[in-house]
Amino acid sequence: MGEGRKGRRPGNPDTQGQILEAASREFASRGYDSATIRGVATAAGVDPALVLHYFGTKEQLFVATLHVPVNPAAIVRGILDDTEPGQMGERLIATMLGVWDATAHRNPLIAVLRSVAGEGPVADTVRQFIERSIIAAFAERLPGPEPQLRAVLIGSQVAGLLLARYVVRLEPLASADPRRLAAIYGPTIQRYAYGQLPPVDPQEASSGVHSP
Amino acid sequence: MGEGRKGRRPGNPDTQGQILEAASREFASRGYDSATIRGVATAAGVDPALVLHYFGTKEQLFVATLHVPVNPAAIVRGILDDTEPGQMGERLIATMLGVWDATAHRNPLIAVLRSVAGEGPVADTVRQFIERSIIAAFAERLPGPEPQLRAVLIGSQVAGLLLARYVVRLEPLASADPRRLAAIYGPTIQRYAYGQLPPVDPQEASSGVHSP
Repeated sequence: MGEGRKGRRPGNPDTQGQILEAASREFASRGYDSATIRGVATAAGVDPALVLHYFGTKEQLFVATLHVPVNPAAIVRGILDDTEPGQMGERLIATMLGVWDATAHRNPLIAVLRSVAGEGPVADTVRQFIERSIIAAFAERLPGPEPQLRAVLIGSQVAGLLLARYVVRLEPLASADPRRLAAIYGPTIQRYAYGQLPPVDPQEASSGVHSP
Repeated sequence: MGEGRKGRRPGNPDTQGQILEAASREFASRGYDSATIRGVATAAGVDPALVLHYFGTKEQLFVATLHVPVNPAAIVRGILDDTEPGQMGERLIATMLGVWDATAHRNPLIAVLRSVAGEGPVADTVRQFIERSIIAAFAERLPGPEPQLRAVLIGSQVAGLLLARYVVRLEPLASADPRRLAAIYGPTIQRYAYGQLPPVDPQEASSGVHSP
């Protein structure tokens, strides 16, 4: 992977780009869970400390390879740690829309969607990232029972909103005021996060209706 | 487009396949709105009546080119016409999951998602179909104000659920009992369809915050 480079090179204008290229290859070949900062550094022919200097964490390095404007997991952590629970849903939607509206002209979501709709190792890597990073950030912070299910329910509504607004661009949603959308979607997120979920029907609980 | 065929041929085992191939090309080159049964028939070298015989309507012909198990617009029309409003949300989710669970092994959704995440004429065609057919089926049947917005809100939750369950396959959603998911998502669909939507803030209504 290292293109034959052995020496440790200091930072220069295209070092970040070389690290990103090496990271894309490493994530694609090893998956999100198994890829390491050290492995990326070796493949890029730089010191691991330089990778950390530029990108901070493995999570941030992966987000950088997706060319998305923000780390969604960091947004989730920030909002759940700093917002009172009654405001969480509305604030989450408002923040997500604020971020994606600002980059709608280049629409980085489409590339992410293409990756996740693929069947190869890249799709698995994106899936692992979504589970380990975004969904986990929710699940660790939700107080009620079944936090993992609640996290995925929230994810399903946020993803569907992003898909409809930025990818399929369905009107009048695509040009709706983001504050109004936050008020509309907020209560849905609140219910998934903190509301009572209907019980599992004991008659059905063990019948395994869907197997992927 | 007609591959040089001139004669009108009667139905034979691969005539359906030839019509489908011609239809895929016609929809891709003209878009959903402008493609016609007659144009597809000419391209396939068959009589328009034969296309209608096999596929019924332009909508059904397009659905057949997507290789999805059902026509989502037909499901929407059936449910909204035959279900009492109080049960609509739960019934919609239960029916959609029933259909897609049955074909989850070959996952036709992934191909649809790839189409819509593309940037070419195929993506535009899929978008037109979603708007003219699925969203319109809802919007024409919802009684409240802003039926178009309500239709897209419902679409955003259904799409996000399908994405999370069948494409990203996030657990525990991917193997959750479909009846429980219908009970969880039903009230969300009900609210988008029949509930009160927060008003447009007059201060914000004309500021055009998002432009795609």
